[in-house]
Amino acid sequence: MTTSFHPPQRTLMGPGPSDVNPRILEAMSRPTIGHLDPKFIEMMDEVKALLQYAFQTKNELTMPVSAPGSAGMETCFVNLVEPGDKVIVCQNGVFGGRMKENVERCGGEAIMVEDEWGKVVDPAKLEAALKANPDASVVAFVHAETSTGAQSDAKTLVEIAHKYDCLAIVDAVTSLGGTPIKVDEWGIDAIYSGTQKCLSCTPGLSPVSFSPAALEKIKNRKTKAQSWFLDLNLVMGYWGGEGKRAYHHTAPINALYGLHESLVILKEEGLENAWARHAKHHLALRAGLEAMGLKFVVDEKDRLPQLNAVYIPDGVDDVAVRSALLNDYSLEIGAGLGVMAGKVWRIGLMGHACNKRNVLLCLGALGDVLSRMNVSVDKESAVGAAQKILAA
Amino acid sequence: MTTSFHPPQRTLMGPGPSDVNPRILEAMSRPTIGHLDPKFIEMMDEVKALLQYAFQTKNELTMPVSAPGSAGMETCFVNLVEPGDKVIVCQNGVFGGRMKENVERCGGEAIMVEDEWGKVVDPAKLEAALKANPDASVVAFVHAETSTGAQSDAKTLVEIAHKYDCLAIVDAVTSLGGTPIKVDEWGIDAIYSGTQKCLSCTPGLSPVSFSPAALEKIKNRKTKAQSWFLDLNLVMGYWGGEGKRAYHHTAPINALYGLHESLVILKEEGLENAWARHAKHHLALRAGLEAMGLKFVVDEKDRLPQLNAVYIPDGVDDVAVRSALLNDYSLEIGAGLGVMAGKVWRIGLMGHACNKRNVLLCLGALGDVLSRMNVSVDKESAVGAAQKILAA
Repeated sequence: MTTSFHPPQRTLMGPGPSDVNPRILEAMSRPTIGHLDPKFIEMMDEVKALLQYAFQTKNELTMPVSAPGSAGMETCFVNLVEPGDKVIVCQNGVFGGRMKENVERCGGEAIMVEDEWGKVVDPAKLEAALKANPDASVVAFVHAETSTGAQSDAKTLVEIAHKYDCLAIVDAVTSLGGTPIKVDEWGIDAIYSGTQKCLSCTPGLSPVSFSPAALEKIKNRKTKAQSWFLDLNLVMGYWGGEGKRAYHHTAPINALYGLHESLVILKEEGLENAWARHAKHHLALRAGLEAMGLKFVVDEKDRLPQLNAVYIPDGVDDVAVRSALLNDYSLEIGAGLGVMAGKVWRIGLMGHACNKRNVLLCLGALGDVLSRMNVSVDKESAVGAAQKILAA
Repeated sequence: MTTSFHPPQRTLMGPGPSDVNPRILEAMSRPTIGHLDPKFIEMMDEVKALLQYAFQTKNELTMPVSAPGSAGMETCFVNLVEPGDKVIVCQNGVFGGRMKENVERCGGEAIMVEDEWGKVVDPAKLEAALKANPDASVVAFVHAETSTGAQSDAKTLVEIAHKYDCLAIVDAVTSLGGTPIKVDEWGIDAIYSGTQKCLSCTPGLSPVSFSPAALEKIKNRKTKAQSWFLDLNLVMGYWGGEGKRAYHHTAPINALYGLHESLVILKEEGLENAWARHAKHHLALRAGLEAMGLKFVVDEKDRLPQLNAVYIPDGVDDVAVRSALLNDYSLEIGAGLGVMAGKVWRIGLMGHACNKRNVLLCLGALGDVLSRMNVSVDKESAVGAAQKILAA
């Protein structure tokens, strides 16, 4: 007979899910109420307002999609791309490739602007593509490429998109709550994120926000969105906030309790403080990793503090190291993805997981495991280098 | 400053979400682990096996979609319907209409077989439609119509579909765990359900299962499924179980803990016992409601025990009654949906909520509220009638 599942207690320093704040786990276990209950509607309004804060936007259409980040991405594309639309997709990692898939499945044409994995999106290449394709209507790019840890200059890329009358779709799955995102100031038209990264929540929801210009396009589509579940013209009836809420689908009540709590925690800390915390702990982790002789994939100025991709030293067995970390220290770090598989580790410092205990645990455990595999690393100086920065 | 959300403690006797078993809420608050953690993969295998039990199937492709029931419906249609495909859609309530939307958004042609709301799907009408449309490739119908409480004869309808070489898609959102579903014995090709009904879980996931014939069609599609997120050819790489799990999207870890626990509870009770419990408490509730003079929408032989739709007595204010139940008794019952709005109440007896305390609470509270509104009801005989059956 199968019995209840009792997961081990891990420390999650991969690309997400990251450690979940216990307050959020507790919130998720509160009593379920109806998805049209007046008390629940009040909570939805709070979630909207808190997400507006997190995204730094006044966009009315700001809400969580009832499914993981991939569905948030799909929500942006199925609502903003119609058959025949030309979309400039910037790719510098796995997730730009997924955007291309989305465009094509919407019947659109994807014009690819490609940069090397680990590099940021080159604004000059985007501008060249827009010049060459004056009929493009949408530009899409990844702000924080989770597969490499590179952070592109969203503000500049959106400016260029607008210069050529395109709407800008931005992937902020890994950036929201970890590094600055200013939806209104930067003019982002559509943005999606995930709950399991710097919001320290469980996976399963995807916060999104749409500008008035995006909303205008959605309301005036010539064709219906190809997804009923993700059709914002329908979802708005439930999340819209204009008077009566109409049933569309049954909202994931308890997951939303969790998101609400995570956003309350973010507001308590303050966005700027959260960004500063991620920056500081990244510096400490970096000092330690570099003292161990590990090299970063991304140039220093373009690095996401919350996702540290480092090359696996020559001759070191990727799987053996990660298994030892998991089995001996209950510590999860991330494998490489796509062309980076087997070549890099991705060490997350996201949300609740971004703290000095985790920095030291990671450096200590990785140092021990590598030493045992006869890799020459100076464990003490790695931990010392990190501690010096943490103490500052 | 927005603070933590503390929901009231409700009794949920609407069309879902229904009362969640506290064991499930506790399970959802267990520590989050990675979606590729070996321990999590073991749990996924258990979830698959438990779902196979719940659906009574050996189908290898049996798993929960990472989003609510509406996305489970969409998973069936986007994978089994290609542009130009002709689909016979049987409609006898709200959810058949949603199926039509799905077919059309897939580029398919929906041939509607309509029955009155509150009636079951007429097998003769389905057969006539299949005779008239020999090029149809799929038949879709709702087993348990949540908008009316009618249960159609899935076994017979699937037989007819197969006689005309069609695959059968079945909506079992409200039936799974409450009334018999025998996927293999009845030959169902694609089925989807929800977690928040008779599985007593929180909303947010959609268990699905696909027959070998459906899988064959999916693997041999001429076009890609229009949804990347729901494309089973990709999702199978994560849930497939053949060796290594490939990352597709980040699974909703803690929601899956909850589903796992709910299926363990179902297995402990035994499917047949769960069906019998639903049948018995329905009889008790029915006796009480009828003693109060309320009339059922659906003929007795076609009623879902877990969803009791009754007409609102003439002159009674729908919203006032439901608000009084919610405010005075913290009891939620469901409003009518679609053409039934304002005309019926939908009283759920689903999963953990299907127990004698809830039957008595509902009858007592409804009797009190109706009396206060000067509706002549015999409260005592209503409760007495129910107790007589409960004691048997």
